[in-house]
Amino acid sequence: MNYPNKIQKTTHISTEHINYSNRGMDLEQLINETNEYYVEKNIALIYKKPTPIGISEAVYTEHGRIIKNGYFKAPSTLDYNGVYKGKYIEFEAKETQNTTSFPLANFHEHQLAYIPKVIEHGGICFVLIKMNHKVYLLPGTDLVEFIKTNTRKSIPFSYIEEKGWEILEKYNPALDYLKVVDVIYFKGETL
Amino acid sequence: MNYPNKIQKTTHISTEHINYSNRGMDLEQLINETNEYYVEKNIALIYKKPTPIGISEAVYTEHGRIIKNGYFKAPSTLDYNGVYKGKYIEFEAKETQNTTSFPLANFHEHQLAYIPKVIEHGGICFVLIKMNHKVYLLPGTDLVEFIKTNTRKSIPFSYIEEKGWEILEKYNPALDYLKVVDVIYFKGETL
Repeated sequence: MNYPNKIQKTTHISTEHINYSNRGMDLEQLINETNEYYVEKNIALIYKKPTPIGISEAVYTEHGRIIKNGYFKAPSTLDYNGVYKGKYIEFEAKETQNTTSFPLANFHEHQLAYIPKVIEHGGICFVLIKMNHKVYLLPGTDLVEFIKTNTRKSIPFSYIEEKGWEILEKYNPALDYLKVVDVIYFKGETL
Repeated sequence: MNYPNKIQKTTHISTEHINYSNRGMDLEQLINETNEYYVEKNIALIYKKPTPIGISEAVYTEHGRIIKNGYFKAPSTLDYNGVYKGKYIEFEAKETQNTTSFPLANFHEHQLAYIPKVIEHGGICFVLIKMNHKVYLLPGTDLVEFIKTNTRKSIPFSYIEEKGWEILEKYNPALDYLKVVDVIYFKGETL
């Protein structure tokens, strides 16, 4: 911490921080930070659901009930949900290393059946997909449409580019997906 | 199972079934059954959130990742959430054996701070309280109002009777709380 030129170094760090701070953060981290920002700024209440687990063995200790044998269950709903401007919002986040298409096997079967139901009940539903170093919001309706009209087991990247909305990573919030939600679902009324 | 008068007995069982089938079911079971009914009948998508856990030890086996040491975290949001007619809905369920008042210590402190936020964001928020063998829906606004204007650490039963909406237990769904939600939050527009 003993820099020859402390001010310059600090400036340098600060620049890095603004431009590249999210580099290396995975999609889940970006979303969690963004959701914390939304809660802090009182913009929305959106949380990651706890992973559902099954407990086969638990013991009682002086610290309360402790799980001694537990397993992870496959989720049948999506990862994140909450409230934004009175509306229900639910979405899933997925990353793929594939460059040409997004494999639908990234979803559990129940999740794919669940997405049209959320839409039917008037909820805002989408997927955030990180692919080719970019993050896209793909509306649930476009995902459902693709599955209905295709027998392919993966979505071509060109479809995601065409139907999806790119969300640029920035400093704070890291991934301001509600800006896009405003445009798509609130007709930009708050922009 | 060898009844002298089978038909009469069956009739008797059937009557019991209609009137008292929920006897012995705790509040959580009543709500879970009701939520399953709502999903099946395509009325709403409302689920109990998985209990948040912390994992201090996990191992990988041929069956996947297994928790060897886990503990329960205190939830900071409410137990149930979902979508109903496009609106966000979130609520907590609480039972007490007390007959004269409902202790606020039944809530975690974070939960009490969270309820006014859900309301502020336009979500439908309430508590289902089982007390004196009856179930009441107490709107979040009335809970918040009580806490604001009282220094008492428990809500008198008379307040719950006055501000709450009793939900009669019945056969199917066991606890049709959305009927009351319609009246309170949708001005009975679907009744």
